[in-house]
Order: sequence, then C-alpha cells, then structure tokens
Amino acid sequence: MFQLHPQLAADCVTLGTFPLSQLLMLRDANYPWFLLVPARSGIGEIHHLVEADRQQLLHESVCLSQAIEQAFKPDKLNVAALGNMVPQLHVHHIARYRTDPAWPAPVWGRVPASAYTDDAAMMTVADRLTGALPLDAGFTPIP
Amino acid sequence: MFQLHPQLAADCVTLGTFPLSQLLMLRDANYPWFLLVPARSGIGEIHHLVEADRQQLLHESVCLSQAIEQAFKPDKLNVAALGNMVPQLHVHHIARYRTDPAWPAPVWGRVPASAYTDDAAMMTVADRLTGALPLDAGFTPIP
Repeated sequence: MFQLHPQLAADCVTLGTFPLSQLLMLRDANYPWFLLVPARSGIGEIHHLVEADRQQLLHESVCLSQAIEQAFKPDKLNVAALGNMVPQLHVHHIARYRTDPAWPAPVWGRVPASAYTDDAAMMTVADRLTGALPLDAGFTPIP
Repeated sequence: MFQLHPQLAADCVTLGTFPLSQLLMLRDANYPWFLLVPARSGIGEIHHLVEADRQQLLHESVCLSQAIEQAFKPDKLNVAALGNMVPQLHVHHIARYRTDPAWPAPVWGRVPASAYTDDAAMMTVADRLTGALPLDAGFTPIP
C-alpha cells in the first residue's frame, strides 16, 4: 500500500493525481517547484519501476514540463530524481529564471525556502499550473 | 548537424554512442559520473524532443542506470537534466555513496572536481561501466 513519505508530505502540498503519480508542489515561493511521486511502494529509482510505469512516468513528466513552460515561461526547466535524503522516488520539476535567487546553480541547499505569504498565494501558482496541464495528462485534482 | 557543446567536450571524455545519445564520462574522480547527450541540434529540454526520441532517451537512461548499479553498487543514483550553464540537453547519471565528498547534498558546486591520476585510471572506470551495459542498449564504443 503506497504512502507518501512524511518528509514530502511536510514540505509539499498535494495538488492531485495522474494515473501513476501524485503531483505535489513545494512550499517554496522562490521557484514554481513541482514533484511527481509514483504511487508505488518501495521504489527509489526510475529504472526500478516496471517498464509500463516508466513509460507512464515519462508521459506525466512531459505533460508537467509542458504545463510549467506554458504557465510560467521559465528560462530553463530543471528535472531531477535525486533522493539522497528522501528515498521514496520523486522527480523534481522546477521552473528556473536567470533572476531567481539560486541561478545558475541548482536550487538545493542554496537559499532557504521562502514561505508563500498565504494559502491563497500558493494556490494561485498551483492553479496556473494545473490549468495548463494538457487533457491527455489524465490529471485528477484533490477534491 | 549535431555538435557536442564545447564545455561538455572540455569537461568529459566521450565513451561512445547509443542510437540517440552520446555517452560521456565526467573528468571527476570523486564520483562515477556519466552523461547522455541526445545527438539532436538545438534541443535544451527533454520535452522538446519528439516522442520517439523521448522513448529512446528513456531506454538509454534505464540501460545506463542498470549498468551503473551493476558496475559500481552505489547507495543512490542521481539522474538530472539541469542545463542552467550549458543549454545543450544533457542528462547526468551519477553514482552516489554515503561516503562521497558531497553526500547527501547534490554534487554540483560542492567540492572541486578531482582529476583522475591518469588516463588509465579513468579508463578503468569507463570500462567497468561499458562492460556492464546490457546488449539491447545498442552501445557502440569510440574506436
């Protein structure tokens, strides 16, 4: 039975689900920062997923990347599966700008997370993202 | 006409080619660190590849990940497409250990690259990797 890792649950808000993955948004106003977490127990690496799940993860990652590009017009996307701290497989998708506080370095460990001013500000960013997801992404928002 | 970005050519040695991507190894003895560079001009993001190329990149990434796991028995793989400095699409595949100099942080910008003692030492690591690639990876070594 899949359960979201408590560190991801603490750091993120869950926006909804794709056929394979949960879609999370990090509570960090420095960057539009989203995560895909395949709902598969005990998986820490992309290549440990079965082939059909890997294909589905690629599809969801492409849909998410297209939506981030359309909604936020970043200068660059950063897509990464690291997991040195949280072993549950999660794939970061981060909109990066030449003007953001970590540019051009990777975001991890650069500047402290900046809290959104309130839930409404956070959900405005979330809504921009989910509103840009293509129909064939198969996204279901959290009720 | 595809040409490898000069910064990647300077930082890496080219080990060979998959059907889509060049396989590079970073000149940094701190970590077994490999890159896939799809041989497509003007592409900076995974989702900008055509669908068939995305599928092929996934296949090559999975083959490379399996080989890294078999050859180096890392504690974790780090797989990432960042590209804030070098806009040509390249996907890092890094074997990480709890004992490596950057753990648990991501490797970028943590400690300076450590030169391999000589070409023979570097090629020993390269040969361990390429010897572990599965046959269906379609890998062709540099002659």
